[in-house]
Amino acid sequence: MSAQNIVLGANQYGKAEVRLVRITRDAPRHQIEDLSVTSQLRGDFADAHLTGDNAHVVATDTQKNTVYAFAKDGVGTPEEFLLRLGSHFVDSFDWVDGGRWAAEKYQWDRIEVGGQGHDHSFVKAGTETRTAVVTIDKGKPTVISGLQDLSVLKSTGSEFTGYPKDQYTTLKETTDRILATSVTSRWRYNTLDVDYDKSFDDVRRTMLEAFATTHSLALQQSLFEMGKQVLAAHEEIDEIKFSMPNLHHFLVDLSPFELENPNEVFYAADRPYGLIEATVQREGAADAGRAWEGIAGFC
Amino acid sequence: MSAQNIVLGANQYGKAEVRLVRITRDAPRHQIEDLSVTSQLRGDFADAHLTGDNAHVVATDTQKNTVYAFAKDGVGTPEEFLLRLGSHFVDSFDWVDGGRWAAEKYQWDRIEVGGQGHDHSFVKAGTETRTAVVTIDKGKPTVISGLQDLSVLKSTGSEFTGYPKDQYTTLKETTDRILATSVTSRWRYNTLDVDYDKSFDDVRRTMLEAFATTHSLALQQSLFEMGKQVLAAHEEIDEIKFSMPNLHHFLVDLSPFELENPNEVFYAADRPYGLIEATVQREGAADAGRAWEGIAGFC
Amino acid sequence: MSAQNIVLGANQYGKAEVRLVRITRDAPRHQIEDLSVTSQLRGDFADAHLTGDNAHVVATDTQKNTVYAFAKDGVGTPEEFLLRLGSHFVDSFDWVDGGRWAAEKYQWDRIEVGGQGHDHSFVKAGTETRTAVVTIDKGKPTVISGLQDLSVLKSTGSEFTGYPKDQYTTLKETTDRILATSVTSRWRYNTLDVDYDKSFDDVRRTMLEAFATTHSLALQQSLFEMGKQVLAAHEEIDEIKFSMPNLHHFLVDLSPFELENPNEVFYAADRPYGLIEATVQREGAADAGRAWEGIAGFC
Amino acid sequence: MSAQNIVLGANQYGKAEVRLVRITRDAPRHQIEDLSVTSQLRGDFADAHLTGDNAHVVATDTQKNTVYAFAKDGVGTPEEFLLRLGSHFVDSFDWVDGGRWAAEKYQWDRIEVGGQGHDHSFVKAGTETRTAVVTIDKGKPTVISGLQDLSVLKSTGSEFTGYPKDQYTTLKETTDRILATSVTSRWRYNTLDVDYDKSFDDVRRTMLEAFATTHSLALQQSLFEMGKQVLAAHEEIDEIKFSMPNLHHFLVDLSPFELENPNEVFYAADRPYGLIEATVQREGAADAGRAWEGIAGFC
Repeated sequence: MSAQNIVLGANQYGKAEVRLVRITRDAPRHQIEDLSVTSQLRGDFADAHLTGDNAHVVATDTQKNTVYAFAKDGVGTPEEFLLRLGSHFVDSFDWVDGGRWAAEKYQWDRIEVGGQGHDHSFVKAGTETRTAVVTIDKGKPTVISGLQDLSVLKSTGSEFTGYPKDQYTTLKETTDRILATSVTSRWRYNTLDVDYDKSFDDVRRTMLEAFATTHSLALQQSLFEMGKQVLAAHEEIDEIKFSMPNLHHFLVDLSPFELENPNEVFYAADRPYGLIEATVQREGAADAGRAWEGIAGFC
Repeated sequence: MSAQNIVLGANQYGKAEVRLVRITRDAPRHQIEDLSVTSQLRGDFADAHLTGDNAHVVATDTQKNTVYAFAKDGVGTPEEFLLRLGSHFVDSFDWVDGGRWAAEKYQWDRIEVGGQGHDHSFVKAGTETRTAVVTIDKGKPTVISGLQDLSVLKSTGSEFTGYPKDQYTTLKETTDRILATSVTSRWRYNTLDVDYDKSFDDVRRTMLEAFATTHSLALQQSLFEMGKQVLAAHEEIDEIKFSMPNLHHFLVDLSPFELENPNEVFYAADRPYGLIEATVQREGAADAGRAWEGIAGFC
Repeated sequence: MSAQNIVLGANQYGKAEVRLVRITRDAPRHQIEDLSVTSQLRGDFADAHLTGDNAHVVATDTQKNTVYAFAKDGVGTPEEFLLRLGSHFVDSFDWVDGGRWAAEKYQWDRIEVGGQGHDHSFVKAGTETRTAVVTIDKGKPTVISGLQDLSVLKSTGSEFTGYPKDQYTTLKETTDRILATSVTSRWRYNTLDVDYDKSFDDVRRTMLEAFATTHSLALQQSLFEMGKQVLAAHEEIDEIKFSMPNLHHFLVDLSPFELENPNEVFYAADRPYGLIEATVQREGAADAGRAWEGIAGFC
Repeated sequence: MSAQNIVLGANQYGKAEVRLVRITRDAPRHQIEDLSVTSQLRGDFADAHLTGDNAHVVATDTQKNTVYAFAKDGVGTPEEFLLRLGSHFVDSFDWVDGGRWAAEKYQWDRIEVGGQGHDHSFVKAGTETRTAVVTIDKGKPTVISGLQDLSVLKSTGSEFTGYPKDQYTTLKETTDRILATSVTSRWRYNTLDVDYDKSFDDVRRTMLEAFATTHSLALQQSLFEMGKQVLAAHEEIDEIKFSMPNLHHFLVDLSPFELENPNEVFYAADRPYGLIEATVQREGAADAGRAWEGIAGFC
């Protein structure tokens, strides 16, 4: 069989997980920004693949250096930092026509001393991570923000009934169960004119409130409600995707020990878990292009 | 702002990471198959999202039961097992028009006793995992096989020179370095008439040989060579994607200790790492449709 | 060589990581307790090892059931729950003369809705885990409480100078660096008459304050200060151990880019890391016996 | 309460997880050694803790440099490399009277090309890790070798019957089950005159054979048999400890689907798991001193 019709397809490369901590120390009260930044370039890199000619290969080490050098000017929101990085690479190298820049941001709180947040001592906060992805495709940037590992649980106010029964169905219906999930969500902005920190905080708050206040007939329903409330309050967002495991909490059968268990004692299972993934979107919104490519676990 | 134009987009749901161990014990010499299986359905599930009506929601617990019940008939290759599962769900429920079924398979060897593999005692082999994904879209199944965490290293035969230098470039050129990566690869078949075990074994062997025998001017070149040789030998494969971190091994500067270090002592770094992702494909091959959606780390 | 003088030494067995979620729902405002519980028995289990006679082997499944059955009566502090479990096993089986019971406890906060904590919806809090170990040895219980993965960082107020220089020393002295660590600590009580929740909260607060307010000349000094302040405020504690990685944040050299970097831009390294471990104790305290056996990473 | 009687107890410090890759390239056929090395010193370090005086604190960065500088002379077995490191620190600094040096070693195989192992291309082998710990206490070195994450499974030849039944027992007896575990083991040598590679290989082989050929009435019995056979064959070893999770494989109940399941289809559970820990030792052997301190999960 001949190899003559074998060609290079889509490709990108760069430096992943550049761990950046930026301290702003113009005043005694320091600020901390803690991120993991990934930079990947797209464009004309065929020669590197076909012949090992690196004339176009902006070294991944150079991409890392650029991240640190740009941080000297301040980081700001992860979204804006990634937009700066992306523009730099696309503008600096003729053969780079796009790419993908991503960040995770970790939250730190001030340590309380005598009821006051300390000036330069911090404690890591929360289990969740804020995420951002900027894609530049044909000169056009798209921003997707998100969060992951936001663990939430309702100890009641969740049912699961009315599902079809076939020969493989053994599950019993329930009108009162624990509903627990670890939310991973990403939302796509339809503009670059966004106050990203403010938007993030409000999206997160809205999601949590929607999860808490929805009497859930299915995790799908909670998910859709969370997305709907976010879109309703944020016209700058066209689309929001969720990947939400259903983290099963099974009621332990205490009857062999002559004990009742009215939804009090549960076994939290690891695997398998339900997995609910869906998009909530604004009708007639512009197409996302390649913005969602390569992001795990969303359909 | 009104919520009237907010709609449900793409969605899927199911049971993830169903841990299945199947022992074939018709003879004293047992066989073991060890998999983690994920089943996700697509179709008309709007009511569950919009109103919490579960009349269409084949319970994820039912999907799990189906995996175990089907395993009673034997597993076989992960690809064929997933195809069986997918067909079952699409055929059994009118409103299910597709889905995504995935598996990881873990390898066990027989424990050697007196130079012979033991009949029913096994030891887990290798760091890598075999993967398979079957997507059914509009009635058409697509099979993507793969592997992940295949760690390889060349202690010489790797260069990196000739890359562009800008104001952020500090990397020195080298004609002799360690090249190390952990290969994640997935390849798409253009037919269902495949001996999946045989194909997997040969793809893996071809990749390893191509990595070993390519004098590498760039990790991109090694990657393309690996893909090209796989496609050249396997006409049943239309497309192969790789995500390969460049796991940096930095030469330690021993000069402060008055020692030379002619490529002998290295520091293996964790982060950041280079990340090289590319597709090698057959020109004019049929479009992949949605088969690659939701798979992490490929462009 | 003969096997006649080969004997069984120290041993213990049980069930590990029993995942228990207990909802208290006597009132509309639910309480949640989320733990991972491990139970291990010690005593006369020689026959199981030597001949496979299980007459003394309280099944690990029975130990798991006991955890869930006891949770029906309420959990309370992890320390008191483990003491109840330990007493039960030692009292119930003649040949069980001791053991080791351990727990991790995960913290949940109420989701805020309209400024109020919701009655039955929770969000997981913090990166850290509360730990407890109860050992019973010769009828005597010892309680060790602790915490792990409490990540803290000072952006200034940390020096490292005056260390010895030998032929392998290349590190430069600094009077201003980032000091970051992830605290793992365990402390041993000298009494069972303890308000464990109150004690835990105050120990944690004291540690954080001591870390924040100590101008650090060495991580060892910060550690000792943290331990000293805990012991000074808690006469019910005889001994506290710390295992604290020095999570290096290296100043990035921006001079090739003609930029200064006055302690602003840092690279957060993964490995290697410094590792500082020490005990702070009350002089003349009673011996700990076997209480510290098998706990990782403390000397 | 006064802090006057609060003192420093046991302590050690150093550099952890120094990732070292050493290539031996004197001939075209390269050798690779891949380790993670930890160095921790003990001695008179009170001043660093009490006053922040670092005059005795051999910097952890210096310890790291020493690891790399020593690797220039060749690594050899991990045990001998750690002994060299330990002697160096104890001999070089008056106030260092002991310490703890540990290593993990990762195995690489040669990539097969045309049936021959390649000269300088390698593939990572196995899921398990070889471990070594050298402790020097009062001038006396002790060597403990080991392995971890060696996953083994018997698909038959394992029973569990005859255990006591109390009010919390629901487990059914079985004369045929899957027995699976991930072996972590450490063994203590009674001499420094050891061929460590040869000893390791034979201990590993002996363990696997004993696991495979023992008809198991309890995991405790398999464990003891493994230890007994190791000690019987290795007079240079005085003591061997095991920590072996019982990785439960539960038979899936297929009866609702009108299918039999004669030990064919299993669910591999994650948590909880049984946990069996025991020591097998030579009667009258010399005391281990502090050699086992700080090693997790052994009693």
